[in-house]
Amino acid sequence: MLYEISEKAIQLENQGKEIIKFNLGDPDLPTPPEIIEASYEAMKQGKTKYSSSAGEKELREELARIHGVSADNVIVTTGSKWAIFSLMFLSLKRGENVVIPSPHWTSYELAAKMVGAETHFLKSDLDSEWNIDPEKLWALIDEDTRLVILNSPSNPTSKVIDDKTFAALVQIANSKGVTVMSDEVYSDISFVKAKSILDFSGDNILVSGFSKTFLMTGWRIGYAVVENELAKRMIKLNQITTTCVPAFIQYGALKGLESRERIADDIRRTFKVRAEAAYSVLSGSGMKFSRSDAPFYLFPKVDGLDSERFALNLLDKGVAVAPGTAFGDYREHFRIALTVDENKIKEGLEKLCEALP
Amino acid sequence: MLYEISEKAIQLENQGKEIIKFNLGDPDLPTPPEIIEASYEAMKQGKTKYSSSAGEKELREELARIHGVSADNVIVTTGSKWAIFSLMFLSLKRGENVVIPSPHWTSYELAAKMVGAETHFLKSDLDSEWNIDPEKLWALIDEDTRLVILNSPSNPTSKVIDDKTFAALVQIANSKGVTVMSDEVYSDISFVKAKSILDFSGDNILVSGFSKTFLMTGWRIGYAVVENELAKRMIKLNQITTTCVPAFIQYGALKGLESRERIADDIRRTFKVRAEAAYSVLSGSGMKFSRSDAPFYLFPKVDGLDSERFALNLLDKGVAVAPGTAFGDYREHFRIALTVDENKIKEGLEKLCEALP
Repeated sequence: MLYEISEKAIQLENQGKEIIKFNLGDPDLPTPPEIIEASYEAMKQGKTKYSSSAGEKELREELARIHGVSADNVIVTTGSKWAIFSLMFLSLKRGENVVIPSPHWTSYELAAKMVGAETHFLKSDLDSEWNIDPEKLWALIDEDTRLVILNSPSNPTSKVIDDKTFAALVQIANSKGVTVMSDEVYSDISFVKAKSILDFSGDNILVSGFSKTFLMTGWRIGYAVVENELAKRMIKLNQITTTCVPAFIQYGALKGLESRERIADDIRRTFKVRAEAAYSVLSGSGMKFSRSDAPFYLFPKVDGLDSERFALNLLDKGVAVAPGTAFGDYREHFRIALTVDENKIKEGLEKLCEALP
Repeated sequence: MLYEISEKAIQLENQGKEIIKFNLGDPDLPTPPEIIEASYEAMKQGKTKYSSSAGEKELREELARIHGVSADNVIVTTGSKWAIFSLMFLSLKRGENVVIPSPHWTSYELAAKMVGAETHFLKSDLDSEWNIDPEKLWALIDEDTRLVILNSPSNPTSKVIDDKTFAALVQIANSKGVTVMSDEVYSDISFVKAKSILDFSGDNILVSGFSKTFLMTGWRIGYAVVENELAKRMIKLNQITTTCVPAFIQYGALKGLESRERIADDIRRTFKVRAEAAYSVLSGSGMKFSRSDAPFYLFPKVDGLDSERFALNLLDKGVAVAPGTAFGDYREHFRIALTVDENKIKEGLEKLCEALP
C-alpha cells in the first residue's frame, strides 16, 4: 500500500496535479552541492567503469575508520534496502523466520516474504511510547529464527530504543544463537544518541546508508558491516545482480563523509523546527502521537480510523500520507514524513485534519 | 572464476601493478561527454530523489518508441544483469530449469543457481562456427523448463545467430510453452544485423542495457521489455530491492539515446580495427578462433590448454584473460575482451602467446 500510494502520487504529478507528499522518507532538501560536484568530477575522471562488487577501496576504508572495523567487513550496496534484501536472501531459507519489531518499515516484511521466509512481529504501541519489550522477544524466537531486526531510530515512529532495552534485545537474540540485523540508517541524524549494534561483540550485522544523512535518497548507496564469510557471500551476490554501486556515486558519498557532522547538524536543525510546526497543528486536532527522537516521521493515531481509505481519499485532495497498515497491524495510525517545508507542513496537515472522519 | 580474476586484477592494480585487462567486457572508451553533462545537469536540477521503480517516464517512453512497444512494458533496471536476475527470481521455482546456449555468460548460470533453479546447457562449438542446433533445443526442453535464453550477439563468442536459426529456436521454445529471454545487450553495436525477439509475437522477454552501446558499464542501467503481469511483478521486486536507477543516470541515458547511431558507429569502427589487430597476432600463433560478428570478444582455443591455470599464471605476467571454464565446459578456450587500445592489444596478446604452454 505504501508503494501503491507512492506510484499513484507520481502518476498524479505526471498529470500536472500538485501533491504535498508526506508519504515518503525522501527529504526535500537538495543533495549538498559538494557531493554533486565530487561525483561529477569522478565521472569526468573516468570513474564510469565496472568497479569492485565490494565497493571502492577508499570508501570502504573511510567507513571502516568511522565504525572502528576492518574494511574487509564493509560492503557497499545499492541502497541500504539492497543490503537488507540480500542479507535476508542469503540468511533465510524457506520456512525459517525473522523477528521484526512492529510497527516496521514495509520493506523488511516484503523482503522476508519475497525470499520465502516467515515473519514474527514484536509489537509495540503508542500508549507505552513504542517501548519494545525484551520478554516478548524471548518468547517470539523459536528454533527456526535466523534474524532479529532492530531499527533505532525507527521508521515509522522516529523513536530511539533506550540503551538498556537495546542491550537486552541483543543479548537475548545472541544468547539464542540468532543474529541481529540493526538498521541504523537514521542514527547519524538522530536528535538523541542511539545505541549501535557495533557497540556489542558477536557476529551481528550493521546496515546503514547515505540516503538520509546525506540527502542522497535517489542515489542508491548504502552499506553493511558483516563478518568475513557473510561479506564474501554478499560480494558474490552483488557480482551476479547489481555488480557495483557506480564508482562516481561512491566518490560523491566519500566527499559527503568529510562534512558529515555539518550536514547532519543542518538536517537535525531543519527537522526539529518542522516537528514543532507539525506538533502545533496536530495537538489542536486532538490526535494522539508521540514526539520524535529523530527526523522525518510522525505516526499519529486516530481512534476508529481506516487509514487505507483515509490515505486514498486524501490523495485526491492533494496530500499523500502512508497508511498505518503499511507498517503492520496499525490501521488507526498513519505516517507523516516531514519532508516538505514548514508552510507546506502546515497547509498539508490542516487539509489532513479537515479530511479526518 | 571470472569474478575471482576480476577482483584479483583490481587488487594487483591497487598494489600499483599494471595489468592489461582483457578479462572484462568493459570498454576503455570514456562515456560520451554529453551523457556525463546531461547527468550532471539532472543532479543539479534535483533529480536526486527516489523515483519510480519502473523507471523515469521519459526514458520508458523513448525506449518504447525505439522498440515499437508500450511504455508500460518497459522496466528500467540496475543494469541488464539485474533484469536477468530478477526475471529468473520471478520466473523460476526450485526444481524448474532454464535452457542456456553455451558457451554462455557466467551470470546466467550463477543467477539460475542462486535462485535454486537447474540449468540445461545447449552446447555449440568452434568447429561448427558456434552454430546453435534447434534440434538440440527441442530435446533439452522438458516439463520443468520455464525459460530459454538467447544471447545474440553472444558473449563470449561475439557470434550472431542467423535469422533462420533464431526463428527456429523461438518457435520451438514457444510451441512448448516456454518463454524466451533474449539478451540483446550487444545488438546495437553488432557488425552484422542481429534478429530481435521483438520481431516475434508471443510473451517473450527482451533484456538490454546501456553499458555496451553507450559506454556506460559502471553506470548500472539496463531495461527489460516484458508483458504486463511480469512488468508489475518486476516493479514490485524493484520496490523492495534496488528501488530505482538514480534518476540523474536515467537522464544521462536518455541523452545518449539521441545520439545512438553516431555513438554505436564509433564503437563499431574502433572495435573492427582492434579485432583486425588481434587476428593478426593470433593467426601467427596457430591458435584456433572464429572472426567476430560484433565488438569486444574473441574466444580462441588452444588444444590441450588448462585455461584456468593459464589465466592465473598470465595475471602474474600483467595480462588478465577470462578462462573458458567461466563460460561452460570450454577448458581449452579463453576469452579476450578487446577493451584496450591497439598497442596494448598487440603487447598483451604477444605476452599471452609467449606464455602459452
